[in-house]
Amino acid sequence: MEVSFTAADIAAIVQAKGTRGATTDLVRRLSALSESGPGDLAFLGNQKYKAEVAAARASVVLLPVGFPGEPAPGQQYLFVENPSVGLARVCARLEQELWPKPAPGIHPTASIAPDANIAPTATIGPLCIVESGAIIGERAHLQAQVFIGRNAAVGEDAWLMPGVILATECELGRRVRVQPGAVIGSDGFGYEFGGGRHHKVPQVGNVVVDDDVEIGANSTLDRARFSRTWVGEGTKIDNLVQVGHNVIIGRHCLLCGQAGVGGHITLGRGVKAGGRAGISSDVEAGSVVNGNPAIPMMLERRIAVLKTRLPDLFRRVAAIEEQLGRAEKSSS
Amino acid sequence: MEVSFTAADIAAIVQAKGTRGATTDLVRRLSALSESGPGDLAFLGNQKYKAEVAAARASVVLLPVGFPGEPAPGQQYLFVENPSVGLARVCARLEQELWPKPAPGIHPTASIAPDANIAPTATIGPLCIVESGAIIGERAHLQAQVFIGRNAAVGEDAWLMPGVILATECELGRRVRVQPGAVIGSDGFGYEFGGGRHHKVPQVGNVVVDDDVEIGANSTLDRARFSRTWVGEGTKIDNLVQVGHNVIIGRHCLLCGQAGVGGHITLGRGVKAGGRAGISSDVEAGSVVNGNPAIPMMLERRIAVLKTRLPDLFRRVAAIEEQLGRAEKSSS
Amino acid sequence: MEVSFTAADIAAIVQAKGTRGATTDLVRRLSALSESGPGDLAFLGNQKYKAEVAAARASVVLLPVGFPGEPAPGQQYLFVENPSVGLARVCARLEQELWPKPAPGIHPTASIAPDANIAPTATIGPLCIVESGAIIGERAHLQAQVFIGRNAAVGEDAWLMPGVILATECELGRRVRVQPGAVIGSDGFGYEFGGGRHHKVPQVGNVVVDDDVEIGANSTLDRARFSRTWVGEGTKIDNLVQVGHNVIIGRHCLLCGQAGVGGHITLGRGVKAGGRAGISSDVEAGSVVNGNPAIPMMLERRIAVLKTRLPDLFRRVAAIEEQLGRAEKSSS
Repeated sequence: MEVSFTAADIAAIVQAKGTRGATTDLVRRLSALSESGPGDLAFLGNQKYKAEVAAARASVVLLPVGFPGEPAPGQQYLFVENPSVGLARVCARLEQELWPKPAPGIHPTASIAPDANIAPTATIGPLCIVESGAIIGERAHLQAQVFIGRNAAVGEDAWLMPGVILATECELGRRVRVQPGAVIGSDGFGYEFGGGRHHKVPQVGNVVVDDDVEIGANSTLDRARFSRTWVGEGTKIDNLVQVGHNVIIGRHCLLCGQAGVGGHITLGRGVKAGGRAGISSDVEAGSVVNGNPAIPMMLERRIAVLKTRLPDLFRRVAAIEEQLGRAEKSSS
Repeated sequence: MEVSFTAADIAAIVQAKGTRGATTDLVRRLSALSESGPGDLAFLGNQKYKAEVAAARASVVLLPVGFPGEPAPGQQYLFVENPSVGLARVCARLEQELWPKPAPGIHPTASIAPDANIAPTATIGPLCIVESGAIIGERAHLQAQVFIGRNAAVGEDAWLMPGVILATECELGRRVRVQPGAVIGSDGFGYEFGGGRHHKVPQVGNVVVDDDVEIGANSTLDRARFSRTWVGEGTKIDNLVQVGHNVIIGRHCLLCGQAGVGGHITLGRGVKAGGRAGISSDVEAGSVVNGNPAIPMMLERRIAVLKTRLPDLFRRVAAIEEQLGRAEKSSS
Repeated sequence: MEVSFTAADIAAIVQAKGTRGATTDLVRRLSALSESGPGDLAFLGNQKYKAEVAAARASVVLLPVGFPGEPAPGQQYLFVENPSVGLARVCARLEQELWPKPAPGIHPTASIAPDANIAPTATIGPLCIVESGAIIGERAHLQAQVFIGRNAAVGEDAWLMPGVILATECELGRRVRVQPGAVIGSDGFGYEFGGGRHHKVPQVGNVVVDDDVEIGANSTLDRARFSRTWVGEGTKIDNLVQVGHNVIIGRHCLLCGQAGVGGHITLGRGVKAGGRAGISSDVEAGSVVNGNPAIPMMLERRIAVLKTRLPDLFRRVAAIEEQLGRAEKSSS
């Protein structure tokens, strides 16, 4: 599973405009500038890290055209218009090497409805099910044991890993990647209580997942009561995350492992939720939240520290009370 | 996926005893009285909300026979013996429209043990497995890729969605609905430590799920060490919920998303656990709990607010200490 | 599903060196010494519990050779070199009775790559998939609907329950047991932000699970970015647990239900994490942690109690402030 590139390979992949210094190291991994070492590829994606470039030990560093400074011996700078775009090109190439695209076609053990609409370049792996009216886009890959419900849609170049379930009427955009066991389109959790029991409120909306979203293993996204549950373009969802019905998640958010979003919540663009965050009210664009219930990450960290000092605080307050009791007694 | 009803359709479905006012709106969704608008159906399920009826904007309102007051223009009241029962009838009808019952029969790709006992009206979808001795009740629906273990039992009218796993010897009651990917009957987590390692305590009980229970996507219910793990009638369990071995959950409880119940815990009738609640001790009937470890919901909410004021509290206590230090110094 | 043994059966199973007292009770379950009653088998696995032996009510007690004291009437002591080993023998026998080993062979509905390497004594159940280059060890059991990715490896005597997914290149040791729906080898959650969007960092390492590990239902273990995510020998992981990429878990750890371990974390040998613990930094060998973020269990319990007294603490501090305000006023 080892892949390696020469500096020249990388220069070609990133379409380098220029180069400075030279290395004979083979590049085997990607690293942050500050943690990089020989055999690594690092990149300056954000000008605020430019001071870290000089100390970076990576064999190859992607930099914006015109960046000053000299590489260390055995280190090579590659200049590109946009190092982040360059990195993305390397990533795409790496995955190509490691997870080669399967040949198009439908595995003989798959169960496909006669009126499913499957693009000729799509790959439907063993023991997959595609129900009536479903649409599978060009080059989409249903790896194995995937379920696609009635009238559901999978976008071009999407990749659904083993055991993924996309329920009736739900829609995935282009290049969406779904890790194993994720469920998209389970019923929202809604009941009306009456006559001593809970009556199910039908959940007859769907889930819409926009382009370039990734959904983690065994995560669950509930269909809307009416209308849709919606995940915006470029958002990345980790494993075992719960997204309630009628949730709207903005573009380019990050939801870390085991986070949960309650029903009817809206997250603005670029929100980041830490692992195990429990989001029970709307979150403004750009916010970073954590904890349960989720609050701003910096406050949550401060509180996590203060919580461990609660035993001390209780002792201190008791000591004050005693002193004041003494004070009162002595003054009376 | 749009379904709509006229007021006359609804009157027929709920078996209305009388009517007041009139609407020509088509009803497309259900709403709470206070949030309702044109095109909605609302209902008075609990007398404590009767003050909300006058302000409700729903096109059709289900009310108990004899309820006073006048509908707004373009609004129609329907009178029934029990509005909650009426609502349930509407819900059943809505689902009938949206999720039509599949034809009975066994899909040719399903793998069925010769001695499994499958009712002739049951539907076994593609790539399902039913093992030896299992019983599938009348009109039960195993949608796709469902696994039913040896000697397990599925009640009449139960609906098991794609990827559900019902392990050996476990039992589901009538009308139980299991969302995709749920696991019923995984081993309880029990070990004895000895000789430097954990020895597995065999988990040889089962899981019994009573009538009208719903279990959410990717939730896990562990089989008992001995005897049974038991979920009472009408209880509703959301997604990614963990139920430990030998847990007993009473009737008509609600466990919201990502809640967890530790082994050997008993929940009384009608308990409600909020999202992400971690229940580690028995909970009395009718309690509403939240947090981890779970405590009464009202207290948990109060604490969640106070937690955000901890930085301030620490500052206040430090200020008091300083003042008292000054006081002591000045008095000495 | 009932299994019972006579005292003589158990003496034979544990290879008893001697016996004292006698019982005619049938043994039906295993119990801790202090909780045991008639029909139970108890054992002294750790000398620190030796004082509990005299009060144990179990019908049969496993003790180390030479242990003094007299059984109660109707109670029988069995002496063995190592009671823990004796217990393990009983457990193995119980499971044998209850979950008989299936016959070796490959079910006709399984989908097996021509170049997969499957031991002749292995059992591959219905609708399993074994991809190219995968290795399935002697007596391993893939129960049903299991997915084994390209070049993955399953050790001897491993048992993968229905719906388990072992992704490409991942490795399970001997006697590993994986509960239904668990995912081993989902992508780690790693992105670089640039150009307004998250670029995926390829996750091209694997997951290595050592001998005698157990993994719970619907748990998820992420593959490493590079190198491996590693679970040490004898560690037991409960349901719905998340293990991030590049995590290293030592030998004989316990991770209870819904715990989570963030990426790049190391847990020492014998660590125990309580249910729902969120581990976000390294944990030393032998530690017992709980809470989110996880802290030592004893501190976490103390804080959980103090948290419920926060409303009172805020009132007390306010009262102090008022008193001091009065004091200041009266002294001014």
